Amino acid sequence: MALIVQKFGGSSVADADRLRNVASIIAETYRAGNDVVVVVSAQGDTTDDLIAKAKELNESPSRREMDVLLSAGEQMSCALLAITIEKMGLPVCSLLGWQAGFQTTSAYGIARIKNVKADRIRIELDKKNIVVVAGFQGICKYDDITTLGRGGSDTSAVAIAAAMHADRCQIYTDVEGVYTADPRKIKGAVKLSEITYDEMLELATLGAQVLNNRSVEMAKKYGVVLEVLSSMKRVPGTIVKEVVSVEKMLVRGVTKDVNVARISVLGVPDVPGIAFKIFSKIAAKNINVDIILQSVGRDGTKDIAFTVSRDHAQTAMELLGDSFELLRGKTVLCDTDVAKISIVGAGMETHPGTAAKMFEALYEADINIQMIATSEIKISVLIDAKDADRAVDSVHRAFVPEDLVL
Amino acid sequence: MALIVQKFGGSSVADADRLRNVASIIAETYRAGNDVVVVVSAQGDTTDDLIAKAKELNESPSRREMDVLLSAGEQMSCALLAITIEKMGLPVCSLLGWQAGFQTTSAYGIARIKNVKADRIRIELDKKNIVVVAGFQGICKYDDITTLGRGGSDTSAVAIAAAMHADRCQIYTDVEGVYTADPRKIKGAVKLSEITYDEMLELATLGAQVLNNRSVEMAKKYGVVLEVLSSMKRVPGTIVKEVVSVEKMLVRGVTKDVNVARISVLGVPDVPGIAFKIFSKIAAKNINVDIILQSVGRDGTKDIAFTVSRDHAQTAMELLGDSFELLRGKTVLCDTDVAKISIVGAGMETHPGTAAKMFEALYEADINIQMIATSEIKISVLIDAKDADRAVDSVHRAFVPEDLVL
Repeated sequence: MALIVQKFGGSSVADADRLRNVASIIAETYRAGNDVVVVVSAQGDTTDDLIAKAKELNESPSRREMDVLLSAGEQMSCALLAITIEKMGLPVCSLLGWQAGFQTTSAYGIARIKNVKADRIRIELDKKNIVVVAGFQGICKYDDITTLGRGGSDTSAVAIAAAMHADRCQIYTDVEGVYTADPRKIKGAVKLSEITYDEMLELATLGAQVLNNRSVEMAKKYGVVLEVLSSMKRVPGTIVKEVVSVEKMLVRGVTKDVNVARISVLGVPDVPGIAFKIFSKIAAKNINVDIILQSVGRDGTKDIAFTVSRDHAQTAMELLGDSFELLRGKTVLCDTDVAKISIVGAGMETHPGTAAKMFEALYEADINIQMIATSEIKISVLIDAKDADRAVDSVHRAFVPEDLVL
Repeated sequence: MALIVQKFGGSSVADADRLRNVASIIAETYRAGNDVVVVVSAQGDTTDDLIAKAKELNESPSRREMDVLLSAGEQMSCALLAITIEKMGLPVCSLLGWQAGFQTTSAYGIARIKNVKADRIRIELDKKNIVVVAGFQGICKYDDITTLGRGGSDTSAVAIAAAMHADRCQIYTDVEGVYTADPRKIKGAVKLSEITYDEMLELATLGAQVLNNRSVEMAKKYGVVLEVLSSMKRVPGTIVKEVVSVEKMLVRGVTKDVNVARISVLGVPDVPGIAFKIFSKIAAKNINVDIILQSVGRDGTKDIAFTVSRDHAQTAMELLGDSFELLRGKTVLCDTDVAKISIVGAGMETHPGTAAKMFEALYEADINIQMIATSEIKISVLIDAKDADRAVDSVHRAFVPEDLVL
């Protein structure tokens, strides 16, 4: 007998049929003799609908009241899922965030979990109940409802798994697992059977959008074994853990991120502290800078270019414009017509030829590289947006054998 | 400065415009220097929609899970109302049942309030916040969410008013107050400026459907002054309290109840204990019996007739049928084609001619009386359903002067 935490996202519980499907997955796990704790998101578009309702009344509602409003979404879905499980004749009990012991910071809307006091969950499991927990929510020290922000239900599930030392935390989604590239676009994309936390973090950051980053970080910190799998198709998914046994692949995935913009500052004085001043200004606005490229200084000036997410490009440009004494009169350019292509794989750090192989694949596809960034398990390049899909295809073919079955 | 509790029903907060209207009533009360605690029901059809969703998944969901589901309705409406009040620039804080200190029995779906520990409400009032409380819900000793059953938000409002010794508890509805008869049907129906708790209880029981009975009982018990008024039209409503000053009217209201069925048992043995056995059997199923009529015994047998609500007629008939040894072979009849017409008024107990005047009005309208029941402040008659509206009209004309202005 194992303790399994299962998390189902909003699309997995969007309507009656899907609720019944999810209930049957849960029932199967329970009937196999496991203790089962389920974490559920709000149904389909519920959260967006509630936000729209609030905005109609007040374009800037307080975060406290929005949390009261939005947490009702998970409340309804967890009750409906429990009702569906009851129909199958199984013992079940739904718990809201405050009942399940989710203690969070009081940063409404973006709260962080401080602790999960899982006593009530344990009591219900001891009664042989399946426990369905409303994800995304908790309470803060003022006894107010808080929500965890986007992707919060993944984090709820991992937090329970960590607090209760669960044997596995299954994240059910609408994809079958983590692939070497987007399977809808890249022929030959392969589902990975295993991946490390670090690789998963890089893939998530790079736009693979399978798992929320905070939840992977938490899983890594507490050693929670994650499994990403489909709620629609009953096939094994991808296991995320500390060390994986698959050795035959150098690269775990090829990703494309088009939510990126390149900002270039031309002709800044080539004196110490310039980069610090620019990037501290940007960091102060909570804007993440990704790739940074600085030209070699010439004639007492140099150029600095960097990428930010496209949403932040406008704000970053304003920061670097007239408001910034240091850059007054300098040319600041913004290019949103770019894409970032990356390869991720823990194996690559011991294979010096990896970067060269990637650049060769791009050269063969006649694609120009604008910027390059590397880390121990990742190589990213910035290219023209129009070349993005061809680039992924070419790089994927170079690294992932077409006949690979994992 | 007074402490005012204001309760708004589901139709009063059904959409954005109505929420804004309600917010303006609250703002007016607050700006006049009062402490304001608002109790709100779920918006419009929310509760019915949620019930339908649950029934699609499970025709007999547990009451516990239904309470988790349905309480989300009030959670959403109280957050939306708070968000609307924020928009007006006023300080506000929403509280759910468990935050507001509603401790109830654990009879899910039909819980009773045991206590309101209003500490949190007081803290928020001390901070000068308008407090918006989700009606209809509380928590039981197991820390589970409970709901109070139909009309529960009225009871929530009265319970807060009682616990906090509020100066007034205003129940906003879609009618302007309590009338001597249904104003949509009876020309000359007059709005009452005041009415006693007991009169209100009789009127509510008899189908006036303005206030939930439990809330009136609680208001009477704790001496909470109620006011029934319209959220749409800003005019004084009807005050409900212990003693009223209006003396000029004998009868406070004329009501019609068509949700009634008459059951007759013919030819039962005329021996002691028969009535006891019949009605204890029915009471055991929680069926309320209203008017009871027993014929004078003849030839060792007698007839017993009584009324129940139409919803319970089928169950009552089954109880009295073959399952009941005592009545085997007896004729049991059920007539659902009846209506109960009643007059209510605390003054009538000291006016012996009241019943006669009512019967005269019915006689003049050529309406046959099937059964009669009287109490200290009420006289009810059972008649053919087809005569109901004419009966109310005739009786109302007999008791309520056409030129009466209260």
